[in-house]
Amino acid sequence: MDKIKQYIEQNKDRFLEELFTLIRIPSISSEQEHKGDMVRCAERWRELLLEAGADRAEVMSTEGNPVVYGEKIIDATKPTVLVYGHYDVMPVAPLELWRTSPFEPVVKDGYIWARGADDDKGQSFMQAKAFEYMVRSGELPCNVKFMLEGEEEIGSPSLYGFCEQNKELLKADIILVSDTSMLAADTPSITSGLRGLCYWEVEVTGANHDLHSGIYGGAVANPINVLCKMIADLHDEHGHITIPHFYDDVLVISDEERALMAQAPFDEDAYKRELGVRALKGEEGYTTKERTGIRPCLDVCGIWGGHTGEGSKTVLPSKAYAKISTRLVANQDFEKISRQFQEYFEAAAPDYVTVKVTPCHGGAAYVSPLELKAYRAAEKAMTDTYGCRPIPTRSGGSIPIVAGFEKILGTKSILMGFGLASDDIHAPNENYPLQQFFRGIETIPYFYKYFAE
Amino acid sequence: MDKIKQYIEQNKDRFLEELFTLIRIPSISSEQEHKGDMVRCAERWRELLLEAGADRAEVMSTEGNPVVYGEKIIDATKPTVLVYGHYDVMPVAPLELWRTSPFEPVVKDGYIWARGADDDKGQSFMQAKAFEYMVRSGELPCNVKFMLEGEEEIGSPSLYGFCEQNKELLKADIILVSDTSMLAADTPSITSGLRGLCYWEVEVTGANHDLHSGIYGGAVANPINVLCKMIADLHDEHGHITIPHFYDDVLVISDEERALMAQAPFDEDAYKRELGVRALKGEEGYTTKERTGIRPCLDVCGIWGGHTGEGSKTVLPSKAYAKISTRLVANQDFEKISRQFQEYFEAAAPDYVTVKVTPCHGGAAYVSPLELKAYRAAEKAMTDTYGCRPIPTRSGGSIPIVAGFEKILGTKSILMGFGLASDDIHAPNENYPLQQFFRGIETIPYFYKYFAE
Repeated sequence: MDKIKQYIEQNKDRFLEELFTLIRIPSISSEQEHKGDMVRCAERWRELLLEAGADRAEVMSTEGNPVVYGEKIIDATKPTVLVYGHYDVMPVAPLELWRTSPFEPVVKDGYIWARGADDDKGQSFMQAKAFEYMVRSGELPCNVKFMLEGEEEIGSPSLYGFCEQNKELLKADIILVSDTSMLAADTPSITSGLRGLCYWEVEVTGANHDLHSGIYGGAVANPINVLCKMIADLHDEHGHITIPHFYDDVLVISDEERALMAQAPFDEDAYKRELGVRALKGEEGYTTKERTGIRPCLDVCGIWGGHTGEGSKTVLPSKAYAKISTRLVANQDFEKISRQFQEYFEAAAPDYVTVKVTPCHGGAAYVSPLELKAYRAAEKAMTDTYGCRPIPTRSGGSIPIVAGFEKILGTKSILMGFGLASDDIHAPNENYPLQQFFRGIETIPYFYKYFAE
Repeated sequence: MDKIKQYIEQNKDRFLEELFTLIRIPSISSEQEHKGDMVRCAERWRELLLEAGADRAEVMSTEGNPVVYGEKIIDATKPTVLVYGHYDVMPVAPLELWRTSPFEPVVKDGYIWARGADDDKGQSFMQAKAFEYMVRSGELPCNVKFMLEGEEEIGSPSLYGFCEQNKELLKADIILVSDTSMLAADTPSITSGLRGLCYWEVEVTGANHDLHSGIYGGAVANPINVLCKMIADLHDEHGHITIPHFYDDVLVISDEERALMAQAPFDEDAYKRELGVRALKGEEGYTTKERTGIRPCLDVCGIWGGHTGEGSKTVLPSKAYAKISTRLVANQDFEKISRQFQEYFEAAAPDYVTVKVTPCHGGAAYVSPLELKAYRAAEKAMTDTYGCRPIPTRSGGSIPIVAGFEKILGTKSILMGFGLASDDIHAPNENYPLQQFFRGIETIPYFYKYFAE
């Protein structure tokens, strides 16, 4: 299959030009003003699937942003691969920290710099170009279906219903996803587990309007101080989360499995150096990799209240807000956790404030068994292109819909991603190394070959 | 002196028109974009002082916003009153909560609605119109000096130096200030004490850039969670502030004085109802009035970090910020407290974050003895117009420069203000009852009369 390398070399400029037409559309799913961009981006994907070799492709409406569906059915007796990806991206604030314009992709020093360069426009487009190669070279060994959604970054609210309504259309033997990372550019890995997610917005109200902090300070509860205390109380001194019954369903990992996981190369000093921190912080009794891989966690993703502008305004504010998320592990039910947190946090409110919790979105964790034929095919494919066997890893991130696919469609997923930790997805200056982009395109056809054997 | 009532009645529309020319200038001292408005507002005040009867008036430059100085010297053997006020106002955010435009004053239901309607344009302008009456009626019994600054709401940074450099010009027997409130429209009171103030901005930094909350969540410190814990730890379970040595210099108030203070009318149920809270919250062992009058307190005036916009973005932010202020009482040294907090808060930072504290501004508390001739003059003046003796109160608010006047100029201040708690100063929908505005103008000439006796 050295032909694939040659094909990439001959077409790489076109591949990038095509990818950039997707990136230039600011398809931020969490911001209402981009509604039109979602439709434009879906439409552009439809064109690109047809150009890549799909027999049919369409933009299908959902209750939210549309889904792009495309397929090439070569032989009903052959296995079917359903490629899943998402065309929506995260917001870009704080804009002032970007060194280049987030929606005007730039190639510099061997990287693509843009929002979506990796997550997930860059990664899902590798699937399209690998598919194009297999079609044009006559080497396509499977039926292929594509499903690209526009709501992954907001928890895929409409995709669950879309799957329920299109079970036959989406029928496949495996779902192939490139939306995760490898351990390092020279250390291939396959994500064998994903954490789940639960996200809430909380509002704490003190007095019914902003007060003069001198006239009332000391006598009337300050909702920011109260919110801080309530957030502080969500962890104990050992780094455990204090929500009652939060850990009840967490599976205990065997010492044997922990020992295996510990074999993955990990340089804690380099990790700290890269993050610019003197020390790490997490749950007592677990290593850094375990803290993100097999243990749940709770983070405040945003907080605001009172005077946040220039200058030293003295005010005793009426309201304070926070966005709080937990990452969940296998066997934790996100809907149950969502209720537990809401009940606990509202009940924990002292009588001098009012607390409102609004559940935002969530999803279950996912684990892919290493014995799966598709896992082995992915393992062999990466071994072919990287020259060493990929390590199975548990990612700390969440793709809630992957657990949904298993539940609704009864289909397992393979998370063969080519991102790197340094890609700064969800942050300013998102990037994707060209080497990872091209290596991904090169690897995917091998997966198809081994899976069809 | 019933002539004063008549004079007000005949001129009230003009008084309001003149006041509104001041209010319409958005002189927000904490926002750089309003630099030009500060000069315009000072210039307008200069004109108004001359129109009211000053022999001379000028806009004097300082290191910051200019000071308006005006005077009428009638007889060197007569006592001199120095009127102090400020022409700067607080910011207006959140603008969407205003029912009228903050800088387009509206008279409705017997109130002036605008930023600065009370604090301090409305209140300081009462002084100008009372002065005008005394000049025009030939009843002015004292020399009068006016000093209006443009930086009170940011802690009067330039006025200390201005006073140092103009001690002779500002020489007076008493400083008269209308920038405080009365207990209620039918319960006159004089502010015999003010709390001091200390204000800081704190910044907590975790990793050197925003991180994906899934990939890193649980292993890397979240600066918002850490900031919340550090803020929560600033109070113990009894509502005491935990900064070491914070209370060292607080004077213990005698049981006798506490009993006297407790005689001031105060309806705690009405207070709670007005604020819309089910319960109050403050330091154990003190009443509500004591908590704001004779005890220091600590409030977070603003907090922000991470994703504060629409939608549920999952991010483990790099930074979190808060604006923290304390109100201080007599004998607490704000510069000492400022250092104590900075040292304590920076030292309290766990090794997985970096904490930076920036002191913003501060000022000492002030106490006015009830035996002072000027206090007695103010007491008699209010008794004349209100028909009952005003109650001495300790305000929770701060006018740091008042302690500065005593230190630099050696001159005591009388805080005879006509605001009401419902005026929402520093908040949306600031207002000032017309009745308070006119009653203030009516009362001030009596003060001059009794003070000159």
